[in-house]
Amino acid sequence: MGKTDDRRPGGATRRAFMTSALAGGAALAATGRSWAEGDPLITEIQDWNRYLGDGVDAAPYGMPSAFEADVIRRDVPWLTADPVSSVNFTPLHALDGIITPNGLCFERHHAGTALIDPADYRLMINGLVDTPLVFTMSDLKRFPRENRVYFLECAANSGMEWRGSQLNGCQFTHGMVHCVMYTGVPLRTLLQEAGVRTSGKWLLAEGADASAMTRSIPLEKALDDCLVAFAMNGEALRPEQGYPVRLCVPGWEGNMWVKWLRRLEVGDKPWAQREETSKYTDLLENGIARRHTFLMDVKSVITSPSPQAPVTHGKGPLVITGLAWSGSGTISRVDVSIDGGRNWKTARLDGPSLPKALHRFYLDIEWDGSELLLQSRAMDEKGYIQPTKDELRAARGVNSIYHNNSIQTWQVRQDGEVENVEVS
Amino acid sequence: MGKTDDRRPGGATRRAFMTSALAGGAALAATGRSWAEGDPLITEIQDWNRYLGDGVDAAPYGMPSAFEADVIRRDVPWLTADPVSSVNFTPLHALDGIITPNGLCFERHHAGTALIDPADYRLMINGLVDTPLVFTMSDLKRFPRENRVYFLECAANSGMEWRGSQLNGCQFTHGMVHCVMYTGVPLRTLLQEAGVRTSGKWLLAEGADASAMTRSIPLEKALDDCLVAFAMNGEALRPEQGYPVRLCVPGWEGNMWVKWLRRLEVGDKPWAQREETSKYTDLLENGIARRHTFLMDVKSVITSPSPQAPVTHGKGPLVITGLAWSGSGTISRVDVSIDGGRNWKTARLDGPSLPKALHRFYLDIEWDGSELLLQSRAMDEKGYIQPTKDELRAARGVNSIYHNNSIQTWQVRQDGEVENVEVS
Repeated sequence: MGKTDDRRPGGATRRAFMTSALAGGAALAATGRSWAEGDPLITEIQDWNRYLGDGVDAAPYGMPSAFEADVIRRDVPWLTADPVSSVNFTPLHALDGIITPNGLCFERHHAGTALIDPADYRLMINGLVDTPLVFTMSDLKRFPRENRVYFLECAANSGMEWRGSQLNGCQFTHGMVHCVMYTGVPLRTLLQEAGVRTSGKWLLAEGADASAMTRSIPLEKALDDCLVAFAMNGEALRPEQGYPVRLCVPGWEGNMWVKWLRRLEVGDKPWAQREETSKYTDLLENGIARRHTFLMDVKSVITSPSPQAPVTHGKGPLVITGLAWSGSGTISRVDVSIDGGRNWKTARLDGPSLPKALHRFYLDIEWDGSELLLQSRAMDEKGYIQPTKDELRAARGVNSIYHNNSIQTWQVRQDGEVENVEVS
Repeated sequence: MGKTDDRRPGGATRRAFMTSALAGGAALAATGRSWAEGDPLITEIQDWNRYLGDGVDAAPYGMPSAFEADVIRRDVPWLTADPVSSVNFTPLHALDGIITPNGLCFERHHAGTALIDPADYRLMINGLVDTPLVFTMSDLKRFPRENRVYFLECAANSGMEWRGSQLNGCQFTHGMVHCVMYTGVPLRTLLQEAGVRTSGKWLLAEGADASAMTRSIPLEKALDDCLVAFAMNGEALRPEQGYPVRLCVPGWEGNMWVKWLRRLEVGDKPWAQREETSKYTDLLENGIARRHTFLMDVKSVITSPSPQAPVTHGKGPLVITGLAWSGSGTISRVDVSIDGGRNWKTARLDGPSLPKALHRFYLDIEWDGSELLLQSRAMDEKGYIQPTKDELRAARGVNSIYHNNSIQTWQVRQDGEVENVEVS
């Protein structure tokens, strides 16, 4: 941040003393000294300085401030009217950093949330193995564990935007993603324990909820970086995230991260279950459906400003921030455009850069108050670059709702309000 | 994990099929096939397979499972009877990884929890500066931001253990530490904005709560890595953690991380406020008190097994895990002893290694069922090694309650119960 006045945040709102400096600041609030703008929040003692605040010893598990009551998961009534099979969205517009708090992680369920007492939990491994096995929670917690930060993105994230801009907020257009630190046992360890036969090429993961969610996973991926996880951000998985045990399939579509995991079957070919045939396949223009499109490609979105996070402070310094991620590894670079993709500036990545995790980026600009067309474009360590919507449609048509990783545009109006728009 | 039977977790509890493998696993739960141990949790359809689970659309901000109701912050009644100035403890024994969920972060307050509307928030910088300034929340959010994962440890953490083992649980002996990702503006940026005069050598940070917590910080540290933070683990600070703004003083004692931050005064010498004279100084045997002992030295503790996390599965594979941290940077190595410090094995560090953050370690052993005396000993990147209790007492006596970073011992009995003990 430069030292010239016009680059200083608060150029309009910053409050300067009438006098150049004040000695004996400890007596400040009691002096009643007159300020440039006579702000009583500075000159007067406030209630929170005067009176004992509410204790928190009565809150053994703490909650956010009442002033943050709007920072919640939300659903889209016309999209998710059925409580049996529904989804809610992470409030990305109100968050920062790369860790999603557990209480705000979006979740998609197909038969409600199964409530399972960990004492009753069992995980079976069967099929093409030397020794079929069943593990209890206690068994699982005796194997060596790992901790990894991973994003989890629903394949349908941004799906409603394929044919045109629809949902006015990044919570709804991009909020089917979250990022936490998982703790669990490598899936490889458990499969090696059972002994996979040489004929084994695929794995079926099955959930214990009433939908019995089942997905086929290539054995190569299962033996690579998958985790059988029991903790997120340090504590036990949340019920809606598969408590007590879920599968982590890093970088791959969220539907494969089977929740309430109860069974792993080793087979010699994929199974063609409902959720990998009628769902989670991508219908192309020529009538052919792509299947086994597991990888979540490189993607990014600007989270602020965005329709739910308008610019309220007028022109001058403006923090543009967003998230980028790639199922292929780390993010190597994010570019940001303020003119709808004609000119680009490289954004600043800030925070740990972890493979298959969210990355946070910033572009700190001086806003002149004119209309902006904000876009972000991510590149990953493999060199893959996020496509435009036109490029995506040219390659895949508009029949699919899955795997839309195209560039999102937000229009910032002169009054600071923000809209979801498209540019060509 | 080896392939020999006696090293397999679940050697005692593992359930094997009577038949070598089962084809057509999808029909598994309905077959009623008889298992080696005839476990109905495998052979019978459970309620959570049969009925729609409770939906979570009604939980816009999610909470942990009811089965995790014991994983909470706790206080120690005889230690913290006064609600005005109290403390609660992170349940370290029940957590994994390195991120602490916001709802479980320990907190210490001196005048309750101040409740401040962000719209009414002001931060003043005054003293030896060119231009005294006042910032609103909106102002702060216009400066370039950073994201950093840091541990925060109260200087009094483990303080009750100076004279001998007292508290039976790592939640109570070591639970005044937590670790989250902070988002905020570098303090340096704000001080540069005000323009620190060459005579400025120290900074006074003052809180807006009724205790008006005030601490002196060397300007060198203030200009190094301190943050004026407004988010933790992605969301706004929790009320008891200083909402809407707290100071982060990475690696230094928690009391300096002033909550509800309202004022920063630049001066030419430290202030000698109450919380840095009558408190947060270390009385030595010779009657001299060490002061300005800001740095939190290298430290570690085994979190499981521990008195609140006994061994319930009998002999065989056992995961020993714990946390290590250092105010000087990263942890380079953790050794674990199972015989009270006579022999040591190097533990496995797992998860990101970030400076001034918690590090997670594991030692996966085969427990023969005999009594153990568990200890962990951390080393940091500067080469500093965690001392024994005897070494700490020889250097500092037993008058202080602050900065006890000595090695903790847990006795694991043959029945799996765990006690806080001392060994010489």
